[in-house]
Amino acid sequence: MIILAVDTSSQAASCAIMRDGVLAGEFFCNVGLTHSQTAMPMVEALLHITGLAAGDLDVLAVTTGPGSFTGLRIGISSIKGMALALDKPCVEVSTLEALAAGVPGFQGYLAPVMDARREQVYTALFRSHHGMPERLTPDAALSLEELRERLAPLDAPVMLVGDGSVLCYQALEGLPGLLLAPEGCRHQRAGWVAAVGAQLAEQQRFVDADQLAPTYLRLPQAERERMEREQQIAKESL
Amino acid sequence: MIILAVDTSSQAASCAIMRDGVLAGEFFCNVGLTHSQTAMPMVEALLHITGLAAGDLDVLAVTTGPGSFTGLRIGISSIKGMALALDKPCVEVSTLEALAAGVPGFQGYLAPVMDARREQVYTALFRSHHGMPERLTPDAALSLEELRERLAPLDAPVMLVGDGSVLCYQALEGLPGLLLAPEGCRHQRAGWVAAVGAQLAEQQRFVDADQLAPTYLRLPQAERERMEREQQIAKESL
Repeated sequence: MIILAVDTSSQAASCAIMRDGVLAGEFFCNVGLTHSQTAMPMVEALLHITGLAAGDLDVLAVTTGPGSFTGLRIGISSIKGMALALDKPCVEVSTLEALAAGVPGFQGYLAPVMDARREQVYTALFRSHHGMPERLTPDAALSLEELRERLAPLDAPVMLVGDGSVLCYQALEGLPGLLLAPEGCRHQRAGWVAAVGAQLAEQQRFVDADQLAPTYLRLPQAERERMEREQQIAKESL
Repeated sequence: MIILAVDTSSQAASCAIMRDGVLAGEFFCNVGLTHSQTAMPMVEALLHITGLAAGDLDVLAVTTGPGSFTGLRIGISSIKGMALALDKPCVEVSTLEALAAGVPGFQGYLAPVMDARREQVYTALFRSHHGMPERLTPDAALSLEELRERLAPLDAPVMLVGDGSVLCYQALEGLPGLLLAPEGCRHQRAGWVAAVGAQLAEQQRFVDADQLAPTYLRLPQAERERMEREQQIAKESL
């Protein structure tokens, strides 16, 4: 099985190809360019260097959230377009699960954290199990205080990974057993999206291209502001 | 500081750019193509996607061994050519040290092992120290029996990483605390070469392009065979 994975959920963007469980190639960049300018050229370069054509792909994987609202839509749109054109099945991968998969050597709890602004993080709790993350809680948006309450009672070291990890490490200073993943594995990588995606594909957990949709966990800022305005108007008209 | 790293020491090939300690991009492939066909096109695509020109690079890093005799010479020749053309300093990175750097979350000993054929592995022993590998033994070619004698008395778990790790894991079956790195971090990655290279550059441990040379640890097969033939002839002429 040949699987192409794309991730544009955060500041970094990447794509990867996994062939029968072996990472055949990965292209990663983290330079703050608009993903709409980099994602598809990276996929094209990756196919070229691995000697594959788009038609050789069996499954398309993409991180559907949580993450940057615009970023997620770029990755999902790219994969949706390819899947429709090639008539291939897709798998949706949780950004947080892919982050947790990226620290496979760690013996303890894994807490991927993505900066959700407004003193919140997108997070979930995992344990490493035979090199793959085993999920203990669903993806959620938590305040830093709620994260502290979740991590404090744990009975083994906790490694923070993700673009919110430095923020959380500083905010939760003094929590025993708290570790910060090194820079090199702190970001989403499509290679790990492919690894999680391959597991989902083996379990036949496919979705059609037109069902692919982002999982934001929170309302977009524009919708939050509209609701606040509407509540304000409703209050004033009383 | 902007550092370009290239690794072609094994079956996989990769290049990476690190900018002020942050991985700006990485391009990895493991499809068994000749590195002479993939290495420079990958560097070109990486520069393009990160929006950099060759002239923006400050330091060039390359794995100089141990590893595949032909592979090492392709990577070294590429970096030598770029360094001469751009008049930039180089750093030589041990392939084994870069492999050890790739499992930063592991608390215990790290034993990178590369298949050296003839029932030998290229190996060295490290401990993870603040996310970077701390070297405990020099790079060497050991038999599987010598590796067992080295690892057996260790007081903490040992993780095997590298293209010889599956071979060693099977050969040393029953050794307590022996772990196998997951597929995703079992191969050399230029991102980790850049991380180790950046440390060397900070310590001003530069080499000129014309001093770059492979470290084979063993004689190439052709030379071994010539010496055996010569010894045989010398014996017969006695």
